[in-house]
Amino acid sequence: MSEAIAPHPLDAALQLRPLGGDRFQGATQPAWANMVGPFGGITAAQLLQACSEHAKRQGQPLALTVNYAAAVADGEFEIEATPVRTTRTTQHWQMTLRQQGQVCTTGSAVFALRRPTWSAPELVMPAVPPAAEVPLQTQLPPVQWLRCYQFRFVEGGWPDYQAAPEAADSRTVLWVRDEPARPLDAPALAALADVFYPRVFRRRGRFTPAGTISLTTYFHADAAALAAQGARPLLAVAAGRRFALGFFDQSAELWSDDGHLLASSHQVVYFKG
Amino acid sequence: MSEAIAPHPLDAALQLRPLGGDRFQGATQPAWANMVGPFGGITAAQLLQACSEHAKRQGQPLALTVNYAAAVADGEFEIEATPVRTTRTTQHWQMTLRQQGQVCTTGSAVFALRRPTWSAPELVMPAVPPAAEVPLQTQLPPVQWLRCYQFRFVEGGWPDYQAAPEAADSRTVLWVRDEPARPLDAPALAALADVFYPRVFRRRGRFTPAGTISLTTYFHADAAALAAQGARPLLAVAAGRRFALGFFDQSAELWSDDGHLLASSHQVVYFKG
Repeated sequence: MSEAIAPHPLDAALQLRPLGGDRFQGATQPAWANMVGPFGGITAAQLLQACSEHAKRQGQPLALTVNYAAAVADGEFEIEATPVRTTRTTQHWQMTLRQQGQVCTTGSAVFALRRPTWSAPELVMPAVPPAAEVPLQTQLPPVQWLRCYQFRFVEGGWPDYQAAPEAADSRTVLWVRDEPARPLDAPALAALADVFYPRVFRRRGRFTPAGTISLTTYFHADAAALAAQGARPLLAVAAGRRFALGFFDQSAELWSDDGHLLASSHQVVYFKG
Repeated sequence: MSEAIAPHPLDAALQLRPLGGDRFQGATQPAWANMVGPFGGITAAQLLQACSEHAKRQGQPLALTVNYAAAVADGEFEIEATPVRTTRTTQHWQMTLRQQGQVCTTGSAVFALRRPTWSAPELVMPAVPPAAEVPLQTQLPPVQWLRCYQFRFVEGGWPDYQAAPEAADSRTVLWVRDEPARPLDAPALAALADVFYPRVFRRRGRFTPAGTISLTTYFHADAAALAAQGARPLLAVAAGRRFALGFFDQSAELWSDDGHLLASSHQVVYFKG
């Protein structure tokens, strides 16, 4: 008798069943549940995964946009991932996630062939203590998907929702990795890009209903560079720009622990009150 | 006999002919020609305009993503703009621009109803001299669409491609407005979000073939706030994050002249060499 080993929660979420052509079937996972529907980052990873597993896929992820039109209900869903145009260096995708024929999520992706060129960093990783010197957050808010990550906040952890004052800025800096530990790859990075709690919580010092409307992530590293990061924590930085009339935007950077920018990510978020 | 008055170049580009349902016909304009195909910003504005003119449109632009899959050839094109899901506060769109049945450009947009809420700025407009004190750029590179704008560079103007050294950063700060002057609205802002020359030119101090792959813009202001800006110059700021293996990303902010963030915009760009 062989012992069944449960897959990693991320790998469980990424198990898509090909339905032929551009169609794939997936299912929500209890491990990734958010307050309403699944964690937006896992939906982003699933849309990217559908492209990656498509028979016509060329290259590796360069850009991913996910639009959250409606909450995904617990259960099965279907992703349609269509390569709409392939050129020498890029392949453009459109994706749609449906339940009972209704569109819940749309997306687009660009896959690309990277080539050796002149290269240079511009943004520099913030100077922070190494992950091992930053305490692991052991008290997590009561949201299931947070248990899929290890959080070590350098700055801007969850506010004390009972007693926190308004903050002058919404910046958060943390070391973060999948829990259990798992080697980094593009879908893991796509999910991590959404790992920050909404910046309005930090500015206002309190919880308020909020949800990502649209998320865009740019990948700056190829599969080899992501693999080189292994399962070690990434440095993650996020801050908002303007909060107005029910919406705000926030941008994030995800750094390898040796100081390379692996991804930059942006989102516009709905909030209440 | 009446005298024919030519429309503003932006309005000429935004003239779309409804073909029924989700389909609109447009045409490239010589005034907006780039080195290959049209200026990416004008294509973004046209995709947004198709949503705006659709019979089922609700709300105002909140987010726009445009993926440039292939150059648009001179002449007519067809835009398909489909409202895929409408909720109480948001409406989600998918767009495709085709020529001869081939996909040239894809996009997605979110329109939204804004409501009075707690609001606060976070990013602050850089301190710069007013537009009137910054010299108008009279020497423009030989690219047609640049003649559709007035540029006043505070920092980071076009490098002297013959003699400029590599730069330590890729930041550009400028006052910019449509030329001829035209009151600001959402499609004008969508085009302005792409008004920056590729950041790799500035870092390397020289021209190199480059082209936007994917562009995402978040709108922070409603129609009334855009109208209040009138035809006065906006302050525009852009900088890159990382240049690696043939691609880089850059982010931009567009400010009203009284210091409100009207839009933030992000793009990933292909470059050669």
